[in-house]
This record gives sequence, C-alpha cells and structure tokens, in this order.
Amino acid sequence: MTYCVGVKTDSGLVLASDSRTNAGVDQIAQFRKTYIFKEPGERVIYLLSAGNLSVTQSVIQALERSKHFENDVETIWNVRSLFDVCVLVGDQMRKVQAREGPSLAAVGVSAGASFIVGGQVRGERCRMFHVYPEGNFIEATEETLYFQLGESKYGKPILDRVLNSATTLQEASKCVMVSYDSTMRSNISVGPPIEISWYSEDSMQVGLRQRIHENDPYFLSIREAWGQSLRRAFTELPNPDWFYQHT
Amino acid sequence: MTYCVGVKTDSGLVLASDSRTNAGVDQIAQFRKTYIFKEPGERVIYLLSAGNLSVTQSVIQALERSKHFENDVETIWNVRSLFDVCVLVGDQMRKVQAREGPSLAAVGVSAGASFIVGGQVRGERCRMFHVYPEGNFIEATEETLYFQLGESKYGKPILDRVLNSATTLQEASKCVMVSYDSTMRSNISVGPPIEISWYSEDSMQVGLRQRIHENDPYFLSIREAWGQSLRRAFTELPNPDWFYQHT
Repeated sequence: MTYCVGVKTDSGLVLASDSRTNAGVDQIAQFRKTYIFKEPGERVIYLLSAGNLSVTQSVIQALERSKHFENDVETIWNVRSLFDVCVLVGDQMRKVQAREGPSLAAVGVSAGASFIVGGQVRGERCRMFHVYPEGNFIEATEETLYFQLGESKYGKPILDRVLNSATTLQEASKCVMVSYDSTMRSNISVGPPIEISWYSEDSMQVGLRQRIHENDPYFLSIREAWGQSLRRAFTELPNPDWFYQHT
Repeated sequence: MTYCVGVKTDSGLVLASDSRTNAGVDQIAQFRKTYIFKEPGERVIYLLSAGNLSVTQSVIQALERSKHFENDVETIWNVRSLFDVCVLVGDQMRKVQAREGPSLAAVGVSAGASFIVGGQVRGERCRMFHVYPEGNFIEATEETLYFQLGESKYGKPILDRVLNSATTLQEASKCVMVSYDSTMRSNISVGPPIEISWYSEDSMQVGLRQRIHENDPYFLSIREAWGQSLRRAFTELPNPDWFYQHT
C-alpha cells in the first residue's frame, strides 16, 4: 500500500510519499514514489505516485524521455502551465493502461494509478493537482488545500483539523509527520523511509528534500510526544454523566 | 454508511451504533442498528448490524420469531453459549442471502451484512463476537478487545491508543464518543443519533442505554474539548529542524 500527501499553502508545497510497495505478503519492497522534473528558473514539477507500480513507472519513463523530443511537440519540459502537464500525465496514463490493462484485467489485477502533480512553471503561480486513474484531474484550492493518495483515511483527521492556507511549510511538514504516524500505526503496509519535499512559492528551484527513516530522531520524538499528548488530552475529557438511566 | 463499535473489557461491554442508512444521496433514512434479546437472569444478547438493511432486518426478524419454536429446536432463546448464538446468526444470514442474493447480484447490489454479537448467557462469562458476511465469526480477546463495522478507519486510531482490558465502561464510552466524532467529521453519511449500550459483566440484565442526538450537551462538549486539545497538542510539538538542507 501507499500513502502520499501533497499540501498547497500560501508559502508553497509540502509533498510526501512512503516507500513501501507490496504485491502479497512475501513481496514487499521499497520503491521511490516522488519524482522531480526540474529546469531551475524555468520549471520545478513534483509527481507523487500511487497504484500499479508498472503503470506509474511507465508513465514517468515516458515523461522523462520526452526531453529529447522535437520542440514542436508538447512535453512536460516545454508546456507553459502545470495544467498542461496534467493533461500530458493523463494522456500518458491512458496510453499505458490501454497497452497493459487487458492482460492485467485477465488475471484480476488493476492497472489503476494516480498522481499528485505540484510545482511551478515560469509565468504562473505555484499549483497542485490530483490526477485520477481515468486520467482526469482536479486542482487544489484554498478550501481544499491537500490531496492524499492510497491509504488516506487514518491520516486524514489531523490534516482537516490543522491545515489552512496560512500554515507555514514547517508546520505543514509537522502535520504531515503526524498524519504518517497515524497511518503507519494502523496499516503496516505503509512504511518508511518517508520522502518529504518542500517547494517555496516563486523560488523556481527544488527546495528541501528529506528522507525520514524508521529511527529518524525527529520522527521518533513526534511519535512519542503525540501519543502522550493524545492520551493526556483523552484523560482530561469529562466522563459521560449518563449513569443509572436503565431502561 | 454505518459505523458500529463494540468494546469488551474486564467490566463488560460498551456497544454503539449510528442510525444513518443510505441508498444514494436522496435516500438517507434513520434506522436502528442495535437489537437486544433479553431474558433477565438467563441471557442478555446485543446485536449491532451493518450492511444490506433488508438482510440484517430479515436475520433479526427470524431470530425474534424463533421465540415461539418448540424447545427441542436450538434458538437464540435457548442455546447455552454466545458461541452457539453466533452459529445461529451465521446460519440465518446464509439462508437470507441464498434467498435474496441472486436478485440483488443481478442489479449489482451486495447482500453482504455483518454483526457484532455481545452479551452473556447464564453459565458462561460475558463474550463478544464479530460475524462476517460469510457467516463465519471470531471472538474478541484481551489483545483484540474491540470490533468495528462499516466506516471503521477514521475512528480507529483513538481506540488503538486508549483501550485496554482494564478500561472502565465510562472511559470506554468516552473513547467511543471521540471515535464517533472523528468518523462523523470525515464521513457525513455516518450520522446521529448514536445509540450506546452498556452491559456490566455478570449483571445478567440490560444496562444503561443512551441515545445521543446531534445537540447532546455531553457529545458537543467532547467534540469541542477534543478539537481544542488536539490543536494545542499539535502546536506544542516541535517543528522539524531540517532547514536549508537543499539538494
């Protein structure tokens, strides 16, 4: 299973992915799920991927190769908008699924895959999109400022409670770490290392990147402090006052 | 959608269900999902239900009717163990599914349903089981002391962090309320009133029962205090110290 989160605030983007892939209990492996396409000063584009790994890798490969195409062909390297990048990602996904889908369907395996696409192309603001398995996509807004892929439910409540468009990249990262803690406690098939990336609006260059391993001191301190705080907060809540209202 | 929780501690049981049923956005209705079969001093049996409502109601109806059967037929009213009650529930579910399943399958509707069965039959301790849609079932243990039905993920982390076999019925109820708060914030198709029931081990009678409406003062106070505590706990966590490690 996968868990990816992308957060778009006024300051820029925080993008995180886990590294666990599994196809049955005896086939658990680590693969990166964060890809960066950069041309400093011109474009910085992050893709987080989830779903069928052969499909997402084929899509990424095709996007990378297009660097060598003639300039009159639209590619991730020359389009003037992140919206157009998503059109290309969607088209490419449909092509790969058309090629691989029928054989996979014959053995009951899904060719479904999805992406979070975030970043900035010179001439427009920083943006973030969610590309669905069917190749269509939606953009993050001030009201809906994060997207999740994969095992999204356990880690969603803290995002809902904390994030808003004024959240700093540091705070958003802290929130994403707590979200991963909740997810990894409840689903062991989401696993470290977590790759986390920051993009600062208008910087037009790749920002901080951090790989967080199982024993990362910051992640461990968050896990422990958060667990303690929750238990303390729970203890402080009043008990119900319903006693002895038997029917 | 449904959300039901059953908790089995050393003190007894806390069992909760929501009341929302939906079959499309314009068909949302309230139905009770908690059923009690009681013969004070002899047996107190709670069933929480989830899944296809016509199936769960037919199962309950058949169990109720069996009160008038001859005494040499095994029924929920005369078997000597909660284990045997679950065998009957599973058998009855398979019968109903055999009758209704094919017509439902023809229009793409699932006849799946599941139950949490908790309570006590004179002569044995208080027990709790999870009956799956296939009619098989498992029993709660000291290590796995709660079961959930339906929309289980949002409300699971707090159960994992707080519950153990020494938890009192009050504390377990408080925990269940927080679990409902998280679930209802993230899935609007889980809705009040929440029905909550307590069974005290060895009491051999129906304990407290409470219907919690949307504006219940205790539930509102829990929602607000919990939200505030989480935001405060989050603020107190340290920010990451990864700054300026650009690649």
